[in-house]
Amino acid sequence: MSSTFGTLLKISTFGESHCKGVGAVLDGCPPGMTLCEADIQPQLDRRRPGQSKLTTDRRETDRVTIFSGVENGITLGTPIGLFVPNKDQRPGDYRQMSQIPRPSHADFTYQMKYGIRASSGGGRSSARETIGRVAAGAIAEKMLNEAYGVEIVAWVSAVSDIASMDVDLQTITRQTVDGNLIRCPDTAAADKMVDLVTRVKEDQDSVGGIVTCVCRNVPAGWGEPVFDKMEAKLAQAMLSIPATKGFEIGSGFAGTRLKGSIHNDPFVAADGRLGTTTNNSGGIQGGIANGEPVVFRVAFKPPATIGIAQQTVDFNGNPCTLAAKGRHDPCVVSRAVPIVEAMAALVLGDFALRQKMRA
Amino acid sequence: MSSTFGTLLKISTFGESHCKGVGAVLDGCPPGMTLCEADIQPQLDRRRPGQSKLTTDRRETDRVTIFSGVENGITLGTPIGLFVPNKDQRPGDYRQMSQIPRPSHADFTYQMKYGIRASSGGGRSSARETIGRVAAGAIAEKMLNEAYGVEIVAWVSAVSDIASMDVDLQTITRQTVDGNLIRCPDTAAADKMVDLVTRVKEDQDSVGGIVTCVCRNVPAGWGEPVFDKMEAKLAQAMLSIPATKGFEIGSGFAGTRLKGSIHNDPFVAADGRLGTTTNNSGGIQGGIANGEPVVFRVAFKPPATIGIAQQTVDFNGNPCTLAAKGRHDPCVVSRAVPIVEAMAALVLGDFALRQKMRA
Amino acid sequence: MSSTFGTLLKISTFGESHCKGVGAVLDGCPPGMTLCEADIQPQLDRRRPGQSKLTTDRRETDRVTIFSGVENGITLGTPIGLFVPNKDQRPGDYRQMSQIPRPSHADFTYQMKYGIRASSGGGRSSARETIGRVAAGAIAEKMLNEAYGVEIVAWVSAVSDIASMDVDLQTITRQTVDGNLIRCPDTAAADKMVDLVTRVKEDQDSVGGIVTCVCRNVPAGWGEPVFDKMEAKLAQAMLSIPATKGFEIGSGFAGTRLKGSIHNDPFVAADGRLGTTTNNSGGIQGGIANGEPVVFRVAFKPPATIGIAQQTVDFNGNPCTLAAKGRHDPCVVSRAVPIVEAMAALVLGDFALRQKMRA
Amino acid sequence: MSSTFGTLLKISTFGESHCKGVGAVLDGCPPGMTLCEADIQPQLDRRRPGQSKLTTDRRETDRVTIFSGVENGITLGTPIGLFVPNKDQRPGDYRQMSQIPRPSHADFTYQMKYGIRASSGGGRSSARETIGRVAAGAIAEKMLNEAYGVEIVAWVSAVSDIASMDVDLQTITRQTVDGNLIRCPDTAAADKMVDLVTRVKEDQDSVGGIVTCVCRNVPAGWGEPVFDKMEAKLAQAMLSIPATKGFEIGSGFAGTRLKGSIHNDPFVAADGRLGTTTNNSGGIQGGIANGEPVVFRVAFKPPATIGIAQQTVDFNGNPCTLAAKGRHDPCVVSRAVPIVEAMAALVLGDFALRQKMRA
Repeated sequence: MSSTFGTLLKISTFGESHCKGVGAVLDGCPPGMTLCEADIQPQLDRRRPGQSKLTTDRRETDRVTIFSGVENGITLGTPIGLFVPNKDQRPGDYRQMSQIPRPSHADFTYQMKYGIRASSGGGRSSARETIGRVAAGAIAEKMLNEAYGVEIVAWVSAVSDIASMDVDLQTITRQTVDGNLIRCPDTAAADKMVDLVTRVKEDQDSVGGIVTCVCRNVPAGWGEPVFDKMEAKLAQAMLSIPATKGFEIGSGFAGTRLKGSIHNDPFVAADGRLGTTTNNSGGIQGGIANGEPVVFRVAFKPPATIGIAQQTVDFNGNPCTLAAKGRHDPCVVSRAVPIVEAMAALVLGDFALRQKMRA
Repeated sequence: MSSTFGTLLKISTFGESHCKGVGAVLDGCPPGMTLCEADIQPQLDRRRPGQSKLTTDRRETDRVTIFSGVENGITLGTPIGLFVPNKDQRPGDYRQMSQIPRPSHADFTYQMKYGIRASSGGGRSSARETIGRVAAGAIAEKMLNEAYGVEIVAWVSAVSDIASMDVDLQTITRQTVDGNLIRCPDTAAADKMVDLVTRVKEDQDSVGGIVTCVCRNVPAGWGEPVFDKMEAKLAQAMLSIPATKGFEIGSGFAGTRLKGSIHNDPFVAADGRLGTTTNNSGGIQGGIANGEPVVFRVAFKPPATIGIAQQTVDFNGNPCTLAAKGRHDPCVVSRAVPIVEAMAALVLGDFALRQKMRA
Repeated sequence: MSSTFGTLLKISTFGESHCKGVGAVLDGCPPGMTLCEADIQPQLDRRRPGQSKLTTDRRETDRVTIFSGVENGITLGTPIGLFVPNKDQRPGDYRQMSQIPRPSHADFTYQMKYGIRASSGGGRSSARETIGRVAAGAIAEKMLNEAYGVEIVAWVSAVSDIASMDVDLQTITRQTVDGNLIRCPDTAAADKMVDLVTRVKEDQDSVGGIVTCVCRNVPAGWGEPVFDKMEAKLAQAMLSIPATKGFEIGSGFAGTRLKGSIHNDPFVAADGRLGTTTNNSGGIQGGIANGEPVVFRVAFKPPATIGIAQQTVDFNGNPCTLAAKGRHDPCVVSRAVPIVEAMAALVLGDFALRQKMRA
Repeated sequence: MSSTFGTLLKISTFGESHCKGVGAVLDGCPPGMTLCEADIQPQLDRRRPGQSKLTTDRRETDRVTIFSGVENGITLGTPIGLFVPNKDQRPGDYRQMSQIPRPSHADFTYQMKYGIRASSGGGRSSARETIGRVAAGAIAEKMLNEAYGVEIVAWVSAVSDIASMDVDLQTITRQTVDGNLIRCPDTAAADKMVDLVTRVKEDQDSVGGIVTCVCRNVPAGWGEPVFDKMEAKLAQAMLSIPATKGFEIGSGFAGTRLKGSIHNDPFVAADGRLGTTTNNSGGIQGGIANGEPVVFRVAFKPPATIGIAQQTVDFNGNPCTLAAKGRHDPCVVSRAVPIVEAMAALVLGDFALRQKMRA
């Protein structure tokens, strides 16, 4: 009962890795918006496995169908059903894992929770679950952009200890981000990242990284106090993405080392509104957007499924060695970029509707 | 409409800094549990302003009254009403701020959202809002401890760049944590932290820090897949606390620099169950607890309200200088310790009830 | 976990009959509205026990205090805490009932659910639970009336088999309704009802009745499709009131005997909008208001607690006779009038906010 | 945002009459239950249009596909995606209605709410929306029956003024109910009902009726106090079904005419538990089941779409005559039987899970 997210713009996802398909129902999308599959497909293509030599070899075209909620290319205001069939399934790859829980994967915890698990292991912890999010997020993003001019751009800011240089938050675009395979706009860093991931893949190992995301033109006043603060819902949204280990808004952990007199963002008059000269707040104060860019960072661990032999135990506690078969990503960050964008769009889309209620 | 949190164990808080009082309604607490005000008061005392020279001078006794849900010292299973009156109010301190939004505080964003704001500034962004959380959290914690043996202990692991040495997660207690004013169990680091905060207070400045929290004996299987993953709800809960900027579970951002072959937590047979030899997962895999200690870290920024003169603008955009009056903390982390524990207890308490549903 | 109601305008109630008091938190009330206790007290006075010879003798002044959410008589947009202390408690009256569950009361079912129950019997099934609803409903009603001109009037349309003549839905006012003790605007019927209730009270018996409610000026378009249809949420709201057994919207059960050609409400042009010449729909089509008066009826059973000796069994299954002590209403409908109005206001207030979201 | 229902067992439906298909996501179904399409199809067949001469001529096979949540015929505990394609669409039938809102239908109110509507008129108010409910309800029912022995049987108890004789609540089965086309177990009454509906269909008119439902073996203790009382959620569920106008639990409106000394259900010792000698309570006291059969009645109005010419106005307010084309039911009650059962199962299934949480 935890596959639904949002108060007014509500997504419900379904689907495992090895069933007939995956999808989502997006309820609450405003009526009267043009919408067709072509508005959604590009983000699915950016998420798709097999899109480059840096990702898993699983081949899926991931073509989305809109089942409902749209007529003559216009949204009706009713729930939008979204579906992507599963095609390239090789359950045989998972036979060994039915006996041995993969270290740091969800095989063990799903078994503990449900007393059963999908043949692919962690069931809904599969990366394919995120397809429904990306499809629904693309719709939320279209609504945000058309109605408010909101722009959401994420990129890879670190792979292992290779960090990107700072990026201009005001001008960074997806086109720039997609300029290389790893989706890091700092091309020098990107080259090193690609090299590292290629090496790690050859080694049948994996590596982690960081995705940074900026949301521009978020109107001041969006967000809700107390438990649904904008940073709190963003944190929930990001930590709900598989393989995430951390979230920072604005100055984040680095900000804890500053004094208030340095960290505070002084107000200035700017374009007929109040702006701030710095943005340690990450665009949010007291849970509510202040009109500055919303900026946050998400930590992704190295994927748990690796080909290297690992010493572990089977479900019965007997020591054994596991060298996972199956086709898995050596590093998830480049494919995570559209997922982070989708979750940001779902969070902001919900706040957009909640704010209209107050107008 | 965002002052309610939880699916089955549900808290609704109310109250600003300068109204009659603050409190909470906790719905879903199981029946048959002994409960009285004395079970709740200790955590409120640890949160209370004026408890030491390191905190604000505002004097509040913060005595809680249980309005309902308990009869003859036993919970009825019905909503527990909790109330703490406000006493030491000095609204005069806030007169200047009615014209000038404090940099990095919520004065501006509340005004943008509501077109009105409480005289104390950010209304519900006041630290007093957390009283209801701490009171309700103490009840959740009692339930968790009595029914499952869950133990929750938080402490200050950093103030500015002074970091605590590693702490033994299995044995750390609140008694140890409370061994010094700053609530850091590493006494050498604690001394330096106290010195720093004292200096910062004299300077009328402020400083940030980090709170680490461990939850022991969380049963394997607790937590929910997809959007309500345990780490996702913890992240939301922690980022809903005023002044927080970041959240890490397990290896966190540091884990992004490791390879999977190092980062993975191998399973071992332990006490008739499967354990892990390392805990980079922070006790959670795929959103579900694996039986190891749940460990996370929360970043707190330097408090925004400082006495040092700041160059900023007023609500009309006119440049001006603000030297905030009022009584405010130079560093929130020592008082944040029971708040972090309370929010962890509310998250785990909700998962406890959601898990029973599956049994 | 079921003491919270509403999506955007959210009420959480607390309190039993014999604890320190009862109340509610109302979250989501718009900012900038004038509000003080005097806006709330009149409806509480209409609900109050001991207000006439037709009601229970329990004496409660039921004075409400606003704890939060209002400053200088203006709402802040933050949760409004509401409290009414319990005063005239006589737990001794309930001693016998601790052994014998009252027939058709909630003593038995609370015991089965919780394994414990309040000394007064059914705990939250106490009529005092509705105080929080009436207080919060009065605020919702003020908002609806000031922002949209919505008017809500309920009255007693039947006591046992004494039915009121039809009432003019466009002009009926609370003042008219309050013209007699039983709150039936048909004075001839009212006299008979008062006689009957008086007799029934002398007999230590009880009797049921029906409350009808009209909501005028509900804007066309309010309400939500599918599960939150306006009639569905009204039905939930009304059936959540203690002692209710039925709900009808518009033509109700009588409408099942008509043919469509008679039952359909033809449209007409009226005042620049589309109206209907009849109102069998009760102002709602497909879950959404059509601009006509919203009209519904609620069935109240005879109160379960009666002084007449009843043959029953105790909790152990031993046959016994129960003649209930305690002070209880012979007929709840006159006191139910403001409760029905309050729940209607909470439902409509929520739809008002949900509709603004679409504007 | 109102196409989701349930707290722990959560259904989200999607689909209009003239899009690619309709369906639902059911989240919260327990793991380890056998499930395949054949478990669901029978109830869809009972709901299907064109199943008899009494129903609309629209031809739909309504074959369901399970997309997810089941592997090797066993539920995984993850969301179950359900889909039924639309086939026999004739949008041309609706051309006239694009100019003229059908009296008592949702064409007008959807237009007022959304500023747009599906070509078939009321969009989600289409009867096809209920397919997702029936499919998900069949799963809930299977769970309830296998885990608790709960049995749910509904039947037609009245068509217009033709009422069924009383039915034995303990023994009535679906097989008996399905013994005739109208689904009324009183065969004499059924014959008259069939005759009436046949005549009404020939007249291109429509007629209303009543569905009664019994839920046997609902364990004492299920249900939640205050706003989610079992009768309140049943009332919401039933009034969310298209064309419903009323709901009664137990004695209902007739019970308002009784005195408490007659209406109260005395307790008796029965089979090691407390039962009651009468069941005016309808199996529920204070919102919580008492172990007796849960019995309720639902009023269905005559369908709004009729072929007879109606005098009305078009969207611009110009007087005109509407004789609806399209294929519509003269009376919905026989097809409503499985819908009522499905919604009852979804309500009880949710309470089952909420109760386990307390065990």
